[in-house]
Amino acid sequence: MKQRPFTANKNAISRLAKEIKQADVSPLILVHGGGSFGHPMAKQYRINEGYKDTSQILGLAKTHQAMTMLNRLVVDSLIENNLPAMAVPPFSCIVTKYGRIESFDEKPLARMIELQLLPVLYGDAVLDWKVGFAILSGDQLISFLATRLEAERVIIGADVDGLCTADPKTDSSARRIAHLTLGELKKLQQKIGEPRVTDVTGGMVGKIQELIPAVEKGIPVIVVNASKRNNIYKALKGEEVAGTIIERA
Amino acid sequence: MKQRPFTANKNAISRLAKEIKQADVSPLILVHGGGSFGHPMAKQYRINEGYKDTSQILGLAKTHQAMTMLNRLVVDSLIENNLPAMAVPPFSCIVTKYGRIESFDEKPLARMIELQLLPVLYGDAVLDWKVGFAILSGDQLISFLATRLEAERVIIGADVDGLCTADPKTDSSARRIAHLTLGELKKLQQKIGEPRVTDVTGGMVGKIQELIPAVEKGIPVIVVNASKRNNIYKALKGEEVAGTIIERA
Repeated sequence: MKQRPFTANKNAISRLAKEIKQADVSPLILVHGGGSFGHPMAKQYRINEGYKDTSQILGLAKTHQAMTMLNRLVVDSLIENNLPAMAVPPFSCIVTKYGRIESFDEKPLARMIELQLLPVLYGDAVLDWKVGFAILSGDQLISFLATRLEAERVIIGADVDGLCTADPKTDSSARRIAHLTLGELKKLQQKIGEPRVTDVTGGMVGKIQELIPAVEKGIPVIVVNASKRNNIYKALKGEEVAGTIIERA
Repeated sequence: MKQRPFTANKNAISRLAKEIKQADVSPLILVHGGGSFGHPMAKQYRINEGYKDTSQILGLAKTHQAMTMLNRLVVDSLIENNLPAMAVPPFSCIVTKYGRIESFDEKPLARMIELQLLPVLYGDAVLDWKVGFAILSGDQLISFLATRLEAERVIIGADVDGLCTADPKTDSSARRIAHLTLGELKKLQQKIGEPRVTDVTGGMVGKIQELIPAVEKGIPVIVVNASKRNNIYKALKGEEVAGTIIERA
């Protein structure tokens, strides 16, 4: 849902907050992406290339600040719906090494879960031991947290109906794949080739790639279309929902 | 400067941001208090009493969210002045034990300093291993960080001219104490008795109490009136300024 910079679909945020409140599952950790907030600033200052010159340092601050703007809208909406949401900026607790999470202090997060708070994290510009700074995707973060905290399952809210045989936004022959094993997912990836470049499924296989380590640990990953009403509610409740389930076997 | 809830002196914030930019010192860590933002919410939900009932969990989220509102004004103002300010919410990286800092992952903060970013922390509602949650004062945080990161000096921006012989806001005979050794400070505390209750200096000795561990480590603490123009600039530059210097000997 990339649009003009700093535009957010507040109605969608509010509806999803209500669905999460209604589902009433605990413990729960939320991770959101950058939307139209983080990307333009990150691109302008070439944050993904790591530290090249001093002007990027101010750019890094601006990129993170843009991400906190979106995060604030999300957390405000959750609190308005009486959910005890707490922002946990990845920047302040994670350091990567060549873009992969290297150090993370899980103690505050673990304590939040014990107290039934609702931690909210997001894709963010973070510090890196080797290249100065890096973009940490929400997908990498989800996979890392799910594995580290031994999640029961992962629900990915997408703007398509799950993994499809082709890009459903441009190809009318695209059909949703309801169930995938790890083996089938890997075959699909080989068929597709380099993800993010030629991904015929509209980027979903590339996105899912980050989640393979979680699936390998036995954590099912469920992809649903969050832009359709009640899908997130149903997925949280463990109810049947038209999406894609990826399981180890 | 406690006033109506959610009012901030934006002119003062902006002036101080300019003074910090002009002083151009690095490394630097900023810590601010709660002003009129955190206190009312913390009081309403009795956050300082620790976990008593489940309604406080939403209150904890609201209290922290209120603190991030003030922090956002500060960080925005610093970035507007081209300072690479990065919010580091204490809630997301510190856990206390009976209200005292017990676990803190300094890696992200250390990396920020290496990259000459300007970390901005604040007094916050934080999680506690024993009592659920607690109020972490900016003063305790400053003392902890100064000691842990071996600060060269600590500058406290107050709304009075330093430590005085009486409360300068109510007693016209009050005179500023320009220099105090640790021994003299301790004598003054004995004379005053229980701080925060009968502190004739208008609360400053109680405030300074938290900073004694830093002074004991040999880190000088300088209290200046930040509401007077250029005091913070001068203190950052190491220039002479009418305030109170507290040193080990």
